[in-house]
Amino acid sequence: MIATPAPNALFERVQASFLRQGLLLGLGVRLMRVEPGLCELALPYSDQVTQQQGGFHGGAIGALADVAGGYAALTMAPEGMEVTTVEYKINFMNAFQGGELRAIGRVVKAGRRVIVTTAEVQHLSDGQRRDCAIMQQTLAPVTKNY
Amino acid sequence: MIATPAPNALFERVQASFLRQGLLLGLGVRLMRVEPGLCELALPYSDQVTQQQGGFHGGAIGALADVAGGYAALTMAPEGMEVTTVEYKINFMNAFQGGELRAIGRVVKAGRRVIVTTAEVQHLSDGQRRDCAIMQQTLAPVTKNY
Amino acid sequence: MIATPAPNALFERVQASFLRQGLLLGLGVRLMRVEPGLCELALPYSDQVTQQQGGFHGGAIGALADVAGGYAALTMAPEGMEVTTVEYKINFMNAFQGGELRAIGRVVKAGRRVIVTTAEVQHLSDGQRRDCAIMQQTLAPVTKNY
Amino acid sequence: MIATPAPNALFERVQASFLRQGLLLGLGVRLMRVEPGLCELALPYSDQVTQQQGGFHGGAIGALADVAGGYAALTMAPEGMEVTTVEYKINFMNAFQGGELRAIGRVVKAGRRVIVTTAEVQHLSDGQRRDCAIMQQTLAPVTKNY
Repeated sequence: MIATPAPNALFERVQASFLRQGLLLGLGVRLMRVEPGLCELALPYSDQVTQQQGGFHGGAIGALADVAGGYAALTMAPEGMEVTTVEYKINFMNAFQGGELRAIGRVVKAGRRVIVTTAEVQHLSDGQRRDCAIMQQTLAPVTKNY
Repeated sequence: MIATPAPNALFERVQASFLRQGLLLGLGVRLMRVEPGLCELALPYSDQVTQQQGGFHGGAIGALADVAGGYAALTMAPEGMEVTTVEYKINFMNAFQGGELRAIGRVVKAGRRVIVTTAEVQHLSDGQRRDCAIMQQTLAPVTKNY
Repeated sequence: MIATPAPNALFERVQASFLRQGLLLGLGVRLMRVEPGLCELALPYSDQVTQQQGGFHGGAIGALADVAGGYAALTMAPEGMEVTTVEYKINFMNAFQGGELRAIGRVVKAGRRVIVTTAEVQHLSDGQRRDCAIMQQTLAPVTKNY
Repeated sequence: MIATPAPNALFERVQASFLRQGLLLGLGVRLMRVEPGLCELALPYSDQVTQQQGGFHGGAIGALADVAGGYAALTMAPEGMEVTTVEYKINFMNAFQGGELRAIGRVVKAGRRVIVTTAEVQHLSDGQRRDCAIMQQTLAPVTKNY
């Protein structure tokens, strides 16, 4: 279920956390790309992610953006630390059915106490990429306890 | 799966939409209470809703709050209309494992073009009710198309 | 310019900070009430606070809410600490001209690293109190450096 | 007080609204640049914009970002319409004293009912440009009534 780009330490660090997230695995989220300060996730359309009109559910879009921002932040956290979401805010721009969503999270500021990120969610279908949602998020580094 | 309070038109209106939401049914969300300007949902703990530490996932909490606010708004929308989430912002206050979450959405302002809501998410376990998250949300009435 | 309720230590702590804020003094903001976890401010209508239609400016409303939440948080911070705003989100519900605004900030969670507050802004005129805006805010305790 | 770039219709449209805003004129805000979907504002440091530590006040930063996003949106609104802020969310990243702030607002989506923008606020001093704050905002087109 997980994409297999050239393995590297940063990707493996994020993947180790990712594989522990029941929500993401259940929804079918895939980890696509990890770079310093960046994480890209994919969410294919399925019955698991729909709202009442058959489109991608805002809750699923929010979860995807939250995690993309969170893992972008994790790439900047010291070894032995992970990150926890303090809050996020998301604007929904267009509704989509079918195809898949891509969320790209980016670190805007990595402070000692607070990390600020943004994420953009786009819809991919038939080679077209269209804006779905944007998010702004605050995280805090915390000691890893597992 | 759905709680059965004294049936009434408002509850049935919300339930008709609720039962079409694949994401909510898959996560095990239950519709608990519907009143004018208010909606309460429950989300029991399961493997479907966890993050990497085994607690409720922020994405699942966000989805729950989003829907509680959205259905509170739906109770104020004219017949033949439904509502769409423009944006929401959520603060996470405490992490929880086991038990269940309850989200109560409330309409703060029901305008013609924009509806503003808040939601509070609490954790229930062993008779204790503790704060989990708070949300502030903007919705727009749209024509129902199904 | 400052209201004079029964003086007390909490009020004086907040007032000492308030009187150093050039923006608030310039706009004519008044400190009305300070209690544990709560702060109320007033902003009378003037040419200093208007937008293009002659109503209270969203930026002035946002500043008022930000400070009301911040001083509510300050009442919960240990001695020798103050608080800094990490972020806030505000919804504007109705526009008003004349009269005065009142913002009441309340602490929702006072954590060691993060304090969460809400604020509601209302408009007072001719004995009527009407909803103007609501805010949700995150702050962090920081060492006082003056 | 107003910068004078090559005059054009879009700049004049925004300027006509800008000059009616008592808050902005009082704080010393200058309109710097207007392009389709973009607006840049400047706010020089003064006693009018400070918080308790002598830095730029979060409320002034929020007002600047709100207006930069709002005027970016105004450039996309049909003639005879203006825009009103539904809500915004701002993250503060660094505190600054002296110099001036620059806010650049950009339209992310210009819908018929809702316009979504972002703004970044930077601090300029001694030729250095540093991140101060980022904002995400929702506006609605409304009929111009003056």
